Amino acid sequence: MNKKITVIAGDGIGLEVTGITQNILEIIGERFGHQFEFTPALIGHAAIEATGEPCPQKTIDTCRATDAVLLGAVGMPMYDNNPNLKVRPEQGLLKIRKELGLYSNIRPIKLFDELLYTSSIKPEILQGSDIIFFRELTGGIYFGTPRERNEDGTEAIDTLRYSKMEVERIARQAFESAMTRRKKLCSVDKANVLESSRLWRETVQALSSEYPEVEVTHMFIDNAAMQLIRDPKQFDVIVTGNMFGDILTDEASQIAGSMGMLPSASVGNEIGLYEPIHGSAPDIAGKGIANPIASVLSGALLLDISFGLKEESDAIIGAVAQFLKEGYRTLDIATDETPEDKRMNTAQTGEKLAELLASVAV
Amino acid sequence: MNKKITVIAGDGIGLEVTGITQNILEIIGERFGHQFEFTPALIGHAAIEATGEPCPQKTIDTCRATDAVLLGAVGMPMYDNNPNLKVRPEQGLLKIRKELGLYSNIRPIKLFDELLYTSSIKPEILQGSDIIFFRELTGGIYFGTPRERNEDGTEAIDTLRYSKMEVERIARQAFESAMTRRKKLCSVDKANVLESSRLWRETVQALSSEYPEVEVTHMFIDNAAMQLIRDPKQFDVIVTGNMFGDILTDEASQIAGSMGMLPSASVGNEIGLYEPIHGSAPDIAGKGIANPIASVLSGALLLDISFGLKEESDAIIGAVAQFLKEGYRTLDIATDETPEDKRMNTAQTGEKLAELLASVAV
Ligand SMILES: [Mg+2]
Ligand SMILES: [Mg+2]
Repeated sequence: MNKKITVIAGDGIGLEVTGITQNILEIIGERFGHQFEFTPALIGHAAIEATGEPCPQKTIDTCRATDAVLLGAVGMPMYDNNPNLKVRPEQGLLKIRKELGLYSNIRPIKLFDELLYTSSIKPEILQGSDIIFFRELTGGIYFGTPRERNEDGTEAIDTLRYSKMEVERIARQAFESAMTRRKKLCSVDKANVLESSRLWRETVQALSSEYPEVEVTHMFIDNAAMQLIRDPKQFDVIVTGNMFGDILTDEASQIAGSMGMLPSASVGNEIGLYEPIHGSAPDIAGKGIANPIASVLSGALLLDISFGLKEESDAIIGAVAQFLKEGYRTLDIATDETPEDKRMNTAQTGEKLAELLASVAV
Repeated sequence: MNKKITVIAGDGIGLEVTGITQNILEIIGERFGHQFEFTPALIGHAAIEATGEPCPQKTIDTCRATDAVLLGAVGMPMYDNNPNLKVRPEQGLLKIRKELGLYSNIRPIKLFDELLYTSSIKPEILQGSDIIFFRELTGGIYFGTPRERNEDGTEAIDTLRYSKMEVERIARQAFESAMTRRKKLCSVDKANVLESSRLWRETVQALSSEYPEVEVTHMFIDNAAMQLIRDPKQFDVIVTGNMFGDILTDEASQIAGSMGMLPSASVGNEIGLYEPIHGSAPDIAGKGIANPIASVLSGALLLDISFGLKEESDAIIGAVAQFLKEGYRTLDIATDETPEDKRMNTAQTGEKLAELLASVAV
């Protein structure tokens, strides 16, 4: 198979972690007889520095000329505490999602048994949790207009907007996913207060008649934020809007103990984009200590969803599982009990995973 | 002291739990030589049934004629799954908050040591957590207009609106509270995406110059949802908007193991309103098994904040602590290890608390 992949390292630790993943994908290519060609592109602070724009047209064009996108991370703290800046790294993410029609953000949350202890939640509550989130990614309050200040700057508004079409297409993906899993779908909204949530609930409810085998429940966002840590095993597939999904998936990362382990896929009309759920972690950027596993697992998701290379994807996941089984720990999940020679920085993790991949049977 | 209290039982278990609290407040009155006069009023489904309105004007008038309001709970499931109903119980809550100017919802989250085990979060993560939330309650997306469908019903919008004045007045309360505590204030927003959040952050930041002793941090809502369960001890005072506060405080209830233990105060320009954070729990309503402690502790908050009766308030909290210390458990927090004679239904809990109050030294 010959495939082209755009690699958008982005900001902070993005460069370090995508470098490891690109290497892993190259090894997979060699082992399984595929040709992957990588093209770099800019986003976020890195793109603002180089072009003045958080997501230049060239980046979009590059993505469109390839078969899938691997993204690192976006964001720098210098923007966060300066609310007056009009050009911001995160706009780059919002733009690329919108331009590529990436309306569905998919986040599997499944715990490696070796990492049960890393969570602040009790192991017996966590064990066996297996949730997949479908977060709407190009609508809702992160995109709605008007979004503005009044003339004297004393008031600001944002607009939460959803159309039936937007809800339906992501709900359909979630129903389809549920059919391949435990056939349970929980839709999260705030229908007791928000008009857009009532449209959301109505639309999901109407679609459910097409999937009579799927058991559908509706949950308010405040309750969902609570239930997710009270009893995560109750969930199978969760579908929700952009902001609610942003909040719940970050919260759910605590189920997995560390953000450093969680991949995501953003899919829609055209090509898919794959990225870790963690941010750019500027505090540790350039130190070579970031955990690259979320990015590596994003590479595995890419192979699976965009290229249909299930066996190759499983080989990567298997290497990560073996890495943990042999006691290796990246620095974010190491504990006092982790021996010195099992503590792995970014490069060491990449080398060890490459080594384990080489020993995986083809 | 002579004081008048409006009692709005509301829906579901509201009637059962406020009944217990009213009784406890009467006992406090006798023991400490105060005269409390109680006046009932309607809200929610109960009010819709009786008057067609979720919060009739008479309820507002009754509240205004008294010194404080004790509320039970609002909401019935029959409305949730019928998005077409125009009159909804929750509108009653929104209206009373707006009418009485209750712009600040205060939720202390502090764990009784005996209940550490009831949470899904590890005891060592929880122990020593002591957070107080200030949630803006009368602005933001739960109130903003326009909130509507387009003509053919295929699109819906809600509006998130904040003014500097709205942010400033609740931030000031939070700063004042921080000054009496560990002097740490965390403001939660989504300033990397939302215009209203940038106004929020700017306003909190500007106010901080008046409180140089308070250490101010700003956190994005998605990160906050994660940090709250990763390391709750990092927080002292949290201030945030209406919806973010709704989500975070419900999530934080898991820190306390059960919603059945958590009181809240809503204060602003006029009189204060006190209510449990739990809902109307219609599934167990009328069975006499609801945990009335959150309501009883709301009564304690009422005495403290609205009447300045600190000693009387502490007597109630002391009785609850003693109840737990003696091994009594309401049914929501009982475990397999709780002996039969220590399992307390609603009435038994009320009697036991009354008994313990009688033995508290005045
Ligand atoms: Mg996020
Ligand atoms: Mg709530």
